[in-house]
Amino acid sequence: MRAVAIAGIGGIRFGKYGDRSLRVLGEEACIKAIRDAGMKPRDIQAAYVGNLAQWEWGQGLLIGHSVLREIGITKIPITRVENGCATGSNAFHEAWYRVATGACDIALAFGVEQMTVASSEKILNVFTGRQHAERDGDMGNSAPGLFALMARRHMEEFGTTRNQMAMVAVKNRKYGARNPEAQLTRSVTVEEVLKDRMICDPLTLPQCCPRGDGAAAAVLVAAKIARKYSSVPISVAASVQVSGTYPDDRSYTCFDTDVRAAEAAYKMAGLGPGDIDLAEVHDCFSVAEIVHYEDLGFCRKGDGGRFVEEGHSGIGGKIPVNTSGGLLSKGHVIGATGISQIIELVRQLRGQAGGRQVEGARVALQHNGGGFIHTDTASCFIHILRK
Amino acid sequence: MRAVAIAGIGGIRFGKYGDRSLRVLGEEACIKAIRDAGMKPRDIQAAYVGNLAQWEWGQGLLIGHSVLREIGITKIPITRVENGCATGSNAFHEAWYRVATGACDIALAFGVEQMTVASSEKILNVFTGRQHAERDGDMGNSAPGLFALMARRHMEEFGTTRNQMAMVAVKNRKYGARNPEAQLTRSVTVEEVLKDRMICDPLTLPQCCPRGDGAAAAVLVAAKIARKYSSVPISVAASVQVSGTYPDDRSYTCFDTDVRAAEAAYKMAGLGPGDIDLAEVHDCFSVAEIVHYEDLGFCRKGDGGRFVEEGHSGIGGKIPVNTSGGLLSKGHVIGATGISQIIELVRQLRGQAGGRQVEGARVALQHNGGGFIHTDTASCFIHILRK
Repeated sequence: MRAVAIAGIGGIRFGKYGDRSLRVLGEEACIKAIRDAGMKPRDIQAAYVGNLAQWEWGQGLLIGHSVLREIGITKIPITRVENGCATGSNAFHEAWYRVATGACDIALAFGVEQMTVASSEKILNVFTGRQHAERDGDMGNSAPGLFALMARRHMEEFGTTRNQMAMVAVKNRKYGARNPEAQLTRSVTVEEVLKDRMICDPLTLPQCCPRGDGAAAAVLVAAKIARKYSSVPISVAASVQVSGTYPDDRSYTCFDTDVRAAEAAYKMAGLGPGDIDLAEVHDCFSVAEIVHYEDLGFCRKGDGGRFVEEGHSGIGGKIPVNTSGGLLSKGHVIGATGISQIIELVRQLRGQAGGRQVEGARVALQHNGGGFIHTDTASCFIHILRK
Repeated sequence: MRAVAIAGIGGIRFGKYGDRSLRVLGEEACIKAIRDAGMKPRDIQAAYVGNLAQWEWGQGLLIGHSVLREIGITKIPITRVENGCATGSNAFHEAWYRVATGACDIALAFGVEQMTVASSEKILNVFTGRQHAERDGDMGNSAPGLFALMARRHMEEFGTTRNQMAMVAVKNRKYGARNPEAQLTRSVTVEEVLKDRMICDPLTLPQCCPRGDGAAAAVLVAAKIARKYSSVPISVAASVQVSGTYPDDRSYTCFDTDVRAAEAAYKMAGLGPGDIDLAEVHDCFSVAEIVHYEDLGFCRKGDGGRFVEEGHSGIGGKIPVNTSGGLLSKGHVIGATGISQIIELVRQLRGQAGGRQVEGARVALQHNGGGFIHTDTASCFIHILRK
């Protein structure tokens, strides 16, 4: 396979856009990414769009075709993918694969979701009863419930504290306040996090990501032509997709998907966790970020609580994590989330991250998990990017 | 790219399975295809699943992971795709591409849909208002309306008759009666077709495909290992995906997607329409099949009505079309339809098509269109298969 680079990025601030259509949200992100790459829409040769549940939110089929037709992109292969909460990363991965294997030189990946137009009942339907109905769903287990179980077990096995988990939210909201594209922009203290409304013990409201509407897009190109479109093209050093193993034989404090995807991604990039300068990981709940530190090799299993407490995942620490503010600040706009993480890392590697810039960053890791079936995420994507 | 072959196929008869889950339908088709290839589930190295609207029909996310986990397929990349009515073909195309480019040696493609559990209101929602809401949808145009316009225009421009269009339904229902996996198994006469309930003039009920529940699966392997799994491996000589051009400058009697996809597919296979021994084409409505004859090069533009009337698309004719009974007999089970077409062609090329066998068939073409936006299908997939 040949080298691939990111030549353009474009997103819109996640928030409430009930007055706009899903199509219009997608268009704006795509136009921004194409302009950022100094291209015209007609330069795009293939496109993948990530969208989780347009139907459930009241939108139409073939959203990719509808978006792209409006901005003058026709004829080319356009495919919508869905992979639970990792849907956006799946679109990026497929676009990367097409360029890497020479099917085309220029591909567009974008994700779009409009969740705030749906009723709470619909949202609950999607994230509770529908995931694997015969098992978790019918037993009333929702995402906060599953992650709360993981948190309790992590506390029991490793002595992780409520304070440490709260610190994940404090850190991410601190950086979110520096990111003009974050949805929640107010910093919070440990005390505020712990005193806030309990969602599922030990997870309080600021430890659970909000939802929202939004879109994110990236233009991928063959590395050999990248300089034509970007003065600082960012290489895709690894792009990995795995699915769950759902093991019965280990305790509930590790994602087997993370471990296998990370191993494959490090191997593909010829790097190790020690080479990573910063990362965006799937912090749908505070405890998830702690578990990801461990599973991605940023620290030893069980040390995740101390890793955040000692500042290792903050800017200036060993591996700054979620400098965008993470899902906890930006919100989890499912189809767009994975590509939104990539946008943050591209900004960082380009040196365009303003008040949250990680100085000298050259290698960055993106992690996005999808679904939660019986002790494991259903899918996991990891990308490693290099300046 | 390297040669790819189909080593296993498996489907379930399309029909009403309201008492079973979407997951169980998918499992049965996958198990059949894997057994047909003489494999074990653990041999599968990547999977793509096609499903249009699980949400709208009341089912869950990550359907591919749920199905495959239950039959012991874990860890591997699993991706759901959607591409309107061509969703199943998109899954097949992506699986083909992964094997063709060496990402893996064995990939599973399957499609599953369960439409009869949804209310008529939901069905109408999906196929009317949602496709491109600001245009056709809000003007009340549904699929029967769009194809009826095409039929009227074809009659006006080329003198195509109501009888000729009815003959498409008569032919396909005749073959459906010979296919144990078809949903409608009663033959009909031209008189019956014309006298039946008018859906949208000139299209009567038997000229509009029914919906249904079902699943279809295929196992694709690198050609070099195909003989290990199948005594009659069927080669994929072409796999093409295009999107619409939506031209304003031509009349409403041609799918530009068909023309471009066919040109690319013939070029890829090194063949022309004269080499095709039989075809499965997207006969969602009788008139569509007539237009596809023309756009795929089976006859000249405008001659489609005469092509069916003179028996050229029947068994024994120039190019037998829809020997499975087509969508008009099997039903259009969106996510499964494209792969179901491939299953019929593999059976024919293997010589396993029983009372509807096309003798000596060596080359077959599959055509599946998706969506209908302003004078063009949004997407089109064509596969050419060879014995």
